[in-house]
Amino acid sequence: MAEIGYGLIGTGFMGRAHAYAYRAAPAVFPDIPRVRLRGVADADAAAAARFATQYGFETSTGDWRRLLDDPAIHIISVTTPNILHKDMAIAAARAGKHVHCEKPLAPSAGEAREMMETAETAGVRTQVGYNYIKNPALKLAREMIAGGELGEITGFRGIHAEDYMANPDGPFSWRLDASGGPGVIADLGSHIIGMARFLLGPMTEVAADVETIVKSRPKAPGSAERVKVEVDDIARMMLRFARGCGGTIEANWVATGRKMQLDFEVYGSKGGLVFTQERFNELHLYRAGGTPRELGFTRIEIGPQHPPYVNFCVAAGHQLGFNDLKTIEAAEFLGEVAGGPRSGPDFREAWEIQKVVETAVNAGRARQWLKIP
Amino acid sequence: MAEIGYGLIGTGFMGRAHAYAYRAAPAVFPDIPRVRLRGVADADAAAAARFATQYGFETSTGDWRRLLDDPAIHIISVTTPNILHKDMAIAAARAGKHVHCEKPLAPSAGEAREMMETAETAGVRTQVGYNYIKNPALKLAREMIAGGELGEITGFRGIHAEDYMANPDGPFSWRLDASGGPGVIADLGSHIIGMARFLLGPMTEVAADVETIVKSRPKAPGSAERVKVEVDDIARMMLRFARGCGGTIEANWVATGRKMQLDFEVYGSKGGLVFTQERFNELHLYRAGGTPRELGFTRIEIGPQHPPYVNFCVAAGHQLGFNDLKTIEAAEFLGEVAGGPRSGPDFREAWEIQKVVETAVNAGRARQWLKIP
Amino acid sequence: MAEIGYGLIGTGFMGRAHAYAYRAAPAVFPDIPRVRLRGVADADAAAAARFATQYGFETSTGDWRRLLDDPAIHIISVTTPNILHKDMAIAAARAGKHVHCEKPLAPSAGEAREMMETAETAGVRTQVGYNYIKNPALKLAREMIAGGELGEITGFRGIHAEDYMANPDGPFSWRLDASGGPGVIADLGSHIIGMARFLLGPMTEVAADVETIVKSRPKAPGSAERVKVEVDDIARMMLRFARGCGGTIEANWVATGRKMQLDFEVYGSKGGLVFTQERFNELHLYRAGGTPRELGFTRIEIGPQHPPYVNFCVAAGHQLGFNDLKTIEAAEFLGEVAGGPRSGPDFREAWEIQKVVETAVNAGRARQWLKIP
Amino acid sequence: MAEIGYGLIGTGFMGRAHAYAYRAAPAVFPDIPRVRLRGVADADAAAAARFATQYGFETSTGDWRRLLDDPAIHIISVTTPNILHKDMAIAAARAGKHVHCEKPLAPSAGEAREMMETAETAGVRTQVGYNYIKNPALKLAREMIAGGELGEITGFRGIHAEDYMANPDGPFSWRLDASGGPGVIADLGSHIIGMARFLLGPMTEVAADVETIVKSRPKAPGSAERVKVEVDDIARMMLRFARGCGGTIEANWVATGRKMQLDFEVYGSKGGLVFTQERFNELHLYRAGGTPRELGFTRIEIGPQHPPYVNFCVAAGHQLGFNDLKTIEAAEFLGEVAGGPRSGPDFREAWEIQKVVETAVNAGRARQWLKIP
Repeated sequence: MAEIGYGLIGTGFMGRAHAYAYRAAPAVFPDIPRVRLRGVADADAAAAARFATQYGFETSTGDWRRLLDDPAIHIISVTTPNILHKDMAIAAARAGKHVHCEKPLAPSAGEAREMMETAETAGVRTQVGYNYIKNPALKLAREMIAGGELGEITGFRGIHAEDYMANPDGPFSWRLDASGGPGVIADLGSHIIGMARFLLGPMTEVAADVETIVKSRPKAPGSAERVKVEVDDIARMMLRFARGCGGTIEANWVATGRKMQLDFEVYGSKGGLVFTQERFNELHLYRAGGTPRELGFTRIEIGPQHPPYVNFCVAAGHQLGFNDLKTIEAAEFLGEVAGGPRSGPDFREAWEIQKVVETAVNAGRARQWLKIP
Repeated sequence: MAEIGYGLIGTGFMGRAHAYAYRAAPAVFPDIPRVRLRGVADADAAAAARFATQYGFETSTGDWRRLLDDPAIHIISVTTPNILHKDMAIAAARAGKHVHCEKPLAPSAGEAREMMETAETAGVRTQVGYNYIKNPALKLAREMIAGGELGEITGFRGIHAEDYMANPDGPFSWRLDASGGPGVIADLGSHIIGMARFLLGPMTEVAADVETIVKSRPKAPGSAERVKVEVDDIARMMLRFARGCGGTIEANWVATGRKMQLDFEVYGSKGGLVFTQERFNELHLYRAGGTPRELGFTRIEIGPQHPPYVNFCVAAGHQLGFNDLKTIEAAEFLGEVAGGPRSGPDFREAWEIQKVVETAVNAGRARQWLKIP
Repeated sequence: MAEIGYGLIGTGFMGRAHAYAYRAAPAVFPDIPRVRLRGVADADAAAAARFATQYGFETSTGDWRRLLDDPAIHIISVTTPNILHKDMAIAAARAGKHVHCEKPLAPSAGEAREMMETAETAGVRTQVGYNYIKNPALKLAREMIAGGELGEITGFRGIHAEDYMANPDGPFSWRLDASGGPGVIADLGSHIIGMARFLLGPMTEVAADVETIVKSRPKAPGSAERVKVEVDDIARMMLRFARGCGGTIEANWVATGRKMQLDFEVYGSKGGLVFTQERFNELHLYRAGGTPRELGFTRIEIGPQHPPYVNFCVAAGHQLGFNDLKTIEAAEFLGEVAGGPRSGPDFREAWEIQKVVETAVNAGRARQWLKIP
Repeated sequence: MAEIGYGLIGTGFMGRAHAYAYRAAPAVFPDIPRVRLRGVADADAAAAARFATQYGFETSTGDWRRLLDDPAIHIISVTTPNILHKDMAIAAARAGKHVHCEKPLAPSAGEAREMMETAETAGVRTQVGYNYIKNPALKLAREMIAGGELGEITGFRGIHAEDYMANPDGPFSWRLDASGGPGVIADLGSHIIGMARFLLGPMTEVAADVETIVKSRPKAPGSAERVKVEVDDIARMMLRFARGCGGTIEANWVATGRKMQLDFEVYGSKGGLVFTQERFNELHLYRAGGTPRELGFTRIEIGPQHPPYVNFCVAAGHQLGFNDLKTIEAAEFLGEVAGGPRSGPDFREAWEIQKVVETAVNAGRARQWLKIP
């Protein structure tokens, strides 16, 4: 496959990130196929046109279905609000396109499953935008855990907290619309749940405390009319993993002061790992059993020895940024589509994540532990 | 009250900390009465005698009841293993001594209650060794929260994790004996539960996951014979506070690499506070609403403007150590006994903490939320 | 100017960074002209051809002079070893190309001056790759200093330390060849000297201690034959600034453990700023005069309120990487070439930096303070 | 020697620290002799009397010479302003007392030498209050360097910066009186110079930039009359060490925002060490040559394995405070006086430090490198 045609639906925050990533990927990763930025769609056709000019897409359209008709397009990114993912992703899969969809995959696990089944039936590849796990530091953490370097894992602590919904006078938006999903537990929680699965494998049970802090919000910026909010602002979870250990996870978008507290700590009988997305070019490692007077957490700075950092820079100390993580995600999916190894997380994995989210919401309502199906 | 006579039971880790603190307190806090180190007791009379010489106690004994007979003693510290606290504290209170007992107060909430009631009936003052909240940084945090500076509090995250039980070949000890209490949830958990109460007030409900990681341990160092362990190594809790917010707490003594991860984060509608005992001379504060380009967490270094730091040093930047926290605890109790303000946490507060511990253990067994009585 | 043609000389570490940046810039910055990646040159024509394919250049050549003949090229990047910069940059300027040259500009200040004069005579724009100052955090720091927010500046401390030459058995390379310049003081020192000038303006005097730590190195990797090293490994400087304050600067490429310790601290009568490239999405600010109990350094995380972060991401907390800094550099130069504001640092500024470097080397030899001409 | 009689001159900031330390030392270090707090002197006899009550001294006096007449006193601490040290220390030594003097020893190296010679002639032991090097972290650092664990040392960076003189309207005080010494280079600089010597041994040459930032100050708090300031506020130094390496040192008491930036970094061919007094229970170590993907600085937390931490606390993670460092200093001197190993820094070492200070001041005036005599 010498060249892969690419189409993008949505030109917002994540649309930009995808366009950036698919543009950059072939330059950063010379072993993947060339990418042809074939078409971009946005309900606002003029916005799509401007976007096409900015990022170098060949065509633009106000109707996303046009991209499905284009035989030159092999991969479609879906970056619209969650509520729109399903129809788009299913249509794309049925049209034989590989689908790169933003997270969370759908408002509910049932819809996510439908998307997954459709894609698997269609035989197309899928990818979901849990970009933070593309970090070389996360790959290293996973490798260490899988290799037994921490011994038997005894516990996990995960947090994804930000504050973009902390202001009670911040206006209502699609992220707050319950028809799009349950709230922060899906928006941020899915990231840290996915990260926990990436590192430790599947969970089996969950108990949760899920709550809405800001009960109503202005209908629009500055509006006096307030809309009732039915999605959660904070979700706290206790979980059991299939491997035998337990853990806690918190998702919170009203954590005043936090911009990207996507943190985890993992402890095992032989060591510990500590990570925060606030300083995501670092991983902190503790190994038991060394010289007592020198023991401590080592601050590993990600560098050329941690793939695929070296694709971005051959020298140590230069650091990756968020768009680089997204570029790794795009590159891995391009590689997979071209016949390379599975990238992931795919729709199946995203569905698994969504089942955890949904079970947690139910556990919160039921005020009891529930098994994750 | 010109001079207060002091007696100490127990000469281990905490016995040393108490002796240090009562020796130092009157020099650091000139407004409290002088302290007379009147007597020290240890089951090992020779150890007690050596200890008396080291710390300057006037007398020593192998029988702690001798201290109760001494009219020159007004305050008794109880620093023996948890299982011994009750008899000693009750006897001391009945002898009219003010009692400074180490934490957790007793193996069970019921016993703690009995101690509390006895002391209150006897009309003596009590103090329990939750020394970490004596930190000027904690006083500042509490003051800010109470003063509404963080707005409405939306959540709490607390951790007390260490690794002194992480080695599976570490031998059995009194801390692992279930007759002394439920395990880490009492040993470390009571610290962070107490800290949460200190900052945010009482909790109303709890769900918990409480587990034993190391299922058996050598009977003695190097012994081939292993004893079954029935206390917990990790306790994870979700809690609701009476003030309306929720939170999570973890207690863990197998967190490989952690020596004193006694951390909390509190978020409110107007700000956030972050603290770790690993760097306990600092408190990190975020205030919403300032100049956008300058917003961030401010690392406040505790100094003379944060009482009672100035009693230890008149200049900024010099830092307190653990024994200084214990000295504040002793000084505040001495002040209370001399007629000054209530210090605390007293036996009643320790009983409240113990109820949370006990309810959490029960919630863990029942796998459901339980109301804290 | 609807489109700018771009040519690149050199396909090594910095060649890749430039190619990446010029590719990315128009997508990230929609207000600058489109960029046509017209040609790339490398002495190894096959390498140039592969590089062209990877990054999407239209043409490639083994002879860099071919790029000068191409009327479709408006900007030429020079990213070859220092010793080659002069001839290439001068030829490019004479051919009417705007020149974006890597740092340090030339082996000596005299050569830098010749380059600067040629470019100014030719009326072309120039830019030199001091990419770290393109960081929004640096722009903020400069703005605060210039706006008097720190009061009267009293001192500067700057460091650029790495360890890529720390291994005494690391082989000889062009960076160690004295004909290319004086050593670390030019390679890393020029970065921190340039940063100091960016923040505080010109220096007037310097004293220095400049030394070679590894006196000889293997001629090639694993070679038994060793070559004498005549360039410096560590340069320590004391400086006076024209604005009246003093400071110190260290350049060091044998600082074992450091991968990117490009740090500064600036203090003034009203505040202080602390920065490290190791965590370059943060700037730490102290303002005197606030509420005493809340004073401390505030960790500002760079976000959408700090231009041009928002071009890369509309949401806070996502962080820039090294290639993003280079992209800002390219975008600003493209903007300048298209008639926008001056970008810089230009050849004149690079010459000024080089004079500081050269005077410092002389001051080190003379063991005395020297005026910077 | 079963008991050592102790006398203290001066009841200010450092007088309190000494009294605290000599009171605490025998309890913390059971192997040293008992201490009898025999007498305290202050020009203000009433203050001395109050202080005696607070700290438990047997006697007090308004005339420090009375302490010299007391045969029950074996050690005298001198904690008065620098300008008074010489007469007191010399008189004490001549009276056969061991002398523990605060730093800097005297206004000039000549006076320091006189003190040293007198004490050596008298055959008494001496100690100077460079308390920060008593930190177990510093002992560990020194041991690692001396043991060759960092390989050949290539450089040192040291800073002691605070901001207690940053406010230009802060009043004149004895610390600003040139008759008491040259300014910050003596007050703070002597700490970091002493620390550099403690770690790396003697220096041979120095160049310096020494300046007064606040040229005049109110005669008294709030006074309109201003006094000219003749001492320095910032001193920057470049130094050569006898062992062959170079380094820089800065002393600064106008570094707005810094409360205790007493920092050093040491690099060698095999590793690096980083320390800051702001977090003085930690030492950061990098060792070259390990597994590449795990390399980084390890944050060593000082614990029971780092003597003499264990004397203060048997458990890890509890941390020392400033007064504990002073207690170690007192204990080591008590041990020396009782026939134990040399403690130090003694007057001879303090004189060596003062020679560096004085040579640096002269080098600053001469604007050239000077040999340290």
